[in-house]
Amino acid sequence: MPTYTAPVKDMQFILHDVLNVAQSDIPGYDELDRDTTQAILDEAAKLSENVLAPLNKVGDEQGCKLENGVVTTPEGFKDAYDQMCEGGWIGLDCDPEYGGQGMPYLVNSAVGEMFVSANMAFNMYQGLSHGAISAIQTHGSPEQKAKYLPNMIEGKWSGTMNLTEPHCGTDLGLIRTKAEPQDDGSYKITGSKIWISAGEHDLTDNIIHLVLAKAPGGGEGTKGISLFIVPKFMVNEDGSLGDRNAVSCGGLEHKMGIHGNATCVMNYDGATGYLIGEMHKGMRAMFTMMNEARLGVGLQGYAQGAVAYQNALGFARERLQGREVKGVQNPDGPADPIIVHPDVRRNLLMQKSFTEGARAFTFWGAKMIDEAHRKSDADADAMISLLTPVIKGFLTDKGFETTVLAQQTLGGSGFTKEWGLEQFVRDARITMIYEGTNGIQSLDLVGRKLAMNGGKTIMAFFDMVKTYIKENEGNEALKANFLDPLKKASKDLQAAGMYFMQNGMKNPHNALSGSYDFMHLFGHVCLGLMWSKMAQASYAALENGTSDPEFYQTKIETGRFYMARQLPATALHLSRIETGADTVMTLEAANF
Amino acid sequence: MPTYTAPVKDMQFILHDVLNVAQSDIPGYDELDRDTTQAILDEAAKLSENVLAPLNKVGDEQGCKLENGVVTTPEGFKDAYDQMCEGGWIGLDCDPEYGGQGMPYLVNSAVGEMFVSANMAFNMYQGLSHGAISAIQTHGSPEQKAKYLPNMIEGKWSGTMNLTEPHCGTDLGLIRTKAEPQDDGSYKITGSKIWISAGEHDLTDNIIHLVLAKAPGGGEGTKGISLFIVPKFMVNEDGSLGDRNAVSCGGLEHKMGIHGNATCVMNYDGATGYLIGEMHKGMRAMFTMMNEARLGVGLQGYAQGAVAYQNALGFARERLQGREVKGVQNPDGPADPIIVHPDVRRNLLMQKSFTEGARAFTFWGAKMIDEAHRKSDADADAMISLLTPVIKGFLTDKGFETTVLAQQTLGGSGFTKEWGLEQFVRDARITMIYEGTNGIQSLDLVGRKLAMNGGKTIMAFFDMVKTYIKENEGNEALKANFLDPLKKASKDLQAAGMYFMQNGMKNPHNALSGSYDFMHLFGHVCLGLMWSKMAQASYAALENGTSDPEFYQTKIETGRFYMARQLPATALHLSRIETGADTVMTLEAANF
Repeated sequence: MPTYTAPVKDMQFILHDVLNVAQSDIPGYDELDRDTTQAILDEAAKLSENVLAPLNKVGDEQGCKLENGVVTTPEGFKDAYDQMCEGGWIGLDCDPEYGGQGMPYLVNSAVGEMFVSANMAFNMYQGLSHGAISAIQTHGSPEQKAKYLPNMIEGKWSGTMNLTEPHCGTDLGLIRTKAEPQDDGSYKITGSKIWISAGEHDLTDNIIHLVLAKAPGGGEGTKGISLFIVPKFMVNEDGSLGDRNAVSCGGLEHKMGIHGNATCVMNYDGATGYLIGEMHKGMRAMFTMMNEARLGVGLQGYAQGAVAYQNALGFARERLQGREVKGVQNPDGPADPIIVHPDVRRNLLMQKSFTEGARAFTFWGAKMIDEAHRKSDADADAMISLLTPVIKGFLTDKGFETTVLAQQTLGGSGFTKEWGLEQFVRDARITMIYEGTNGIQSLDLVGRKLAMNGGKTIMAFFDMVKTYIKENEGNEALKANFLDPLKKASKDLQAAGMYFMQNGMKNPHNALSGSYDFMHLFGHVCLGLMWSKMAQASYAALENGTSDPEFYQTKIETGRFYMARQLPATALHLSRIETGADTVMTLEAANF
Repeated sequence: MPTYTAPVKDMQFILHDVLNVAQSDIPGYDELDRDTTQAILDEAAKLSENVLAPLNKVGDEQGCKLENGVVTTPEGFKDAYDQMCEGGWIGLDCDPEYGGQGMPYLVNSAVGEMFVSANMAFNMYQGLSHGAISAIQTHGSPEQKAKYLPNMIEGKWSGTMNLTEPHCGTDLGLIRTKAEPQDDGSYKITGSKIWISAGEHDLTDNIIHLVLAKAPGGGEGTKGISLFIVPKFMVNEDGSLGDRNAVSCGGLEHKMGIHGNATCVMNYDGATGYLIGEMHKGMRAMFTMMNEARLGVGLQGYAQGAVAYQNALGFARERLQGREVKGVQNPDGPADPIIVHPDVRRNLLMQKSFTEGARAFTFWGAKMIDEAHRKSDADADAMISLLTPVIKGFLTDKGFETTVLAQQTLGGSGFTKEWGLEQFVRDARITMIYEGTNGIQSLDLVGRKLAMNGGKTIMAFFDMVKTYIKENEGNEALKANFLDPLKKASKDLQAAGMYFMQNGMKNPHNALSGSYDFMHLFGHVCLGLMWSKMAQASYAALENGTSDPEFYQTKIETGRFYMARQLPATALHLSRIETGADTVMTLEAANF
């Protein structure tokens, strides 16, 4: 069975050596000194390692069961969920006015990585609640907040997001679920929603569904959509639970992975719902939560890669097979551990250099979300909006790829259920699909985000990289190993942007045929930037006579691998982009 | 549920327009005119589409069951297997002296692709038999051939290959299964083997196990290994079945995919075995079958990609979501089919251009195997030996990637079991692992095959590509779209080979750190060559006034996509290779 050890030291390195959180001018960050984050991360690590990780395989094997409308989660999930509530983890970054702990989103992300690595399917129950809490916090009336948030933040109630219908996923303008106004100001919600994560389960006393539906008078397409609160059990004035609402689980989806999470068909049969936010502005309400939700999925992608890598590494150190080509390394054993073989090392370093870079990228993104929310920093808000599709798309593609590489390290054992690597592959796979497929992310990036603010945000990104390189070129080791490759990669990104400018106006197909490659190109540049910053912090620590030189030297070596072996992919992506629509749009659909 | 339509027309194109099989100077090929291969492929298509494909999901869901030592295959497998025997498919390319049909291996490969696309787990039962038949055919005594081959070729008996043990997969020198000589000339075989595909099942009356074991006096490591025939039921002199031998299935492996195939732990408790081939030359006996076996796995890889692509394409033509950016394409519907969107097309063309190129590459490889066996052509034998690890490693990596892309085309539906795409992903995954992991393939390629015949074979490959380009440069359209990119890619491959020559001698880590990238670089050049030849044949057909211009035009367009969007990966692989051992070998194992 796979094991999990939370990467507390690596996280502390990013928080303090790289992002210097305690010195950041963001409200709440001054409390984030090394000792405080160490204490929080240590506690989250215990829960992840001892409670959640052992349930990961149980959840996969047992899955969820639906009988007479009641969904039963796998054995042990209820116990683990209660422990999560008791520890206050669900409301970690929620509003203290409603019982939350008020921590920065960044801290929530670090803790979240551990929970996801330990048990992604389990963590989705509280993850979906978190999204619903954010929606009510941002768009709810004072009465709605008072009514729902305390119990949700405590974990007694959970939440869901209901968007997809059988005939529409990406294209929400097509939804048919309707909301009919009632005399008492409520609405009757009627329709069917699919792929609703945690739509029904036995972990909480109540479930607060947020449902997109069409109320009269909004017009065609997405413009007619509003957002409604539909509780599973009605909530009385005194806060006690009343009658069962007319919402029920009509079936569970049979899926490739995340078996421990109940993916439900939800039927609304004239269920009582309450408008949240402005009428016919439901899509806008959804979009305001999108950056967080998508960053959360990007995090899931690399977090699955991270735990898969740990287990691949453990195997590679133990498994004896063959001899090192330049000489026996383990003379007392029948063979050498396979980590001596160059190709096994290459494979492991692909995994390691990606996951550590991805962690830094995600934490940096989470910090920007805090800047945007806690400081109302419009530049940070714009930058994280630009980077969100990159975090979601690139980190989930590469995160999945990492689980596959890790599985490969185990050879035949990787294909067996016993070793558990194949579960990471199956669970990670969904991250490339939900919260907007990665194709949609690339469309958002190239079709919307590049042009945002008249192109000022993307220019700000280029300037930031340029300035960073210029300011640090005096460091010779950093320049040769990190800044020079970063400069090259960043130029590829600029050239791709320029290609879109010059060719996308006259023919949008020239831009959209290259959107996916652009997303990956952008991702590589971001990870190159992160590795440069991690290396810079490591060179500094070494110069300052750190007591742990091996840790920092390892960071530099891992970063060098990324810059030498992964970053050069930018040229390939650029070359594809520059072929434009030519070979993509020629064939008739009938001739494929 | 997914569907399957056998690509008979595409296969005929490769056989006749590209490989000109009927005009090839290979014994038996003169019979392969268009009508004959059409008839064979049509029959195989019927079996694949109507019998095997509908059982693919059944096999995945039911899996195999072990009770009291008896393995039960999924419902319908026995019936389908009997139909396969009745059609004579199992002995299609086997020796007519023992009841085979004596067809070229190439024809067997084309038929095999259909069977694998339709139902990979099912087809492995006869696939493993095929390997055992080849072993007995090549290394068995006349008595052994007479005793085993007729029933195996008819399909009444099946066969297995027993190599792996719990502590050794790649490093077979470590095996512990022992063979003790008996007075009657037989051996008592004792030991445990794992991951034995089709080790026990209910499809045949008898199972003929081929088992690697150590007999006394052979010395250490692989030198001491011999190959033994161990029948499940002893075979009497008159050919009837006698006592049950002391071999039993100790357990079934729980796997990520290929559930319909029984992957067994096989226990040999003093089982009676018979030496096949020379004593202590068991490894050599295995290696003589390796090219065929590995080509067969490469075929599995792209065949899973091919069927996944078909289903992705079907979905992309039907699913209505969003509008084409340059104008509505389906004004009568609520949205356009997603195949109108550039990124969906890009994704589909990645799948299509790979699988069609892979098919041509595999058929070309199969033709070389026929040249080697039927003409005793040493050059063809050397060339296919060089290309075998490329076919196995590259086509399974990219084949798996193709199934993942196809799954992505379906969005959320791709993650559900209902649509079946996720099964192709899970089934394809094993092809990167068994018959030697793809890391081992790359080691074989760079560590052994490049230096084979003093480097003459790789030089012959380069010469062949160079000559081909030179001879056809007069064709301007071909030159610009195909030959120029091919020349560039081939130069990258030569540069990589040159790097290994200059840097691998003084430090083998410089070569082995780049072996995986070299395998992919080589694969791209081969597919580039295949697409050039397919385009050349298509230009010719168009010039000659074909009655089906769309078919040939589509080939050219698909090839153009490959050359423009996939082939440029060679530069990335070269750039990684040229960084050598530097970033791969620095870290201590403890610091990963």
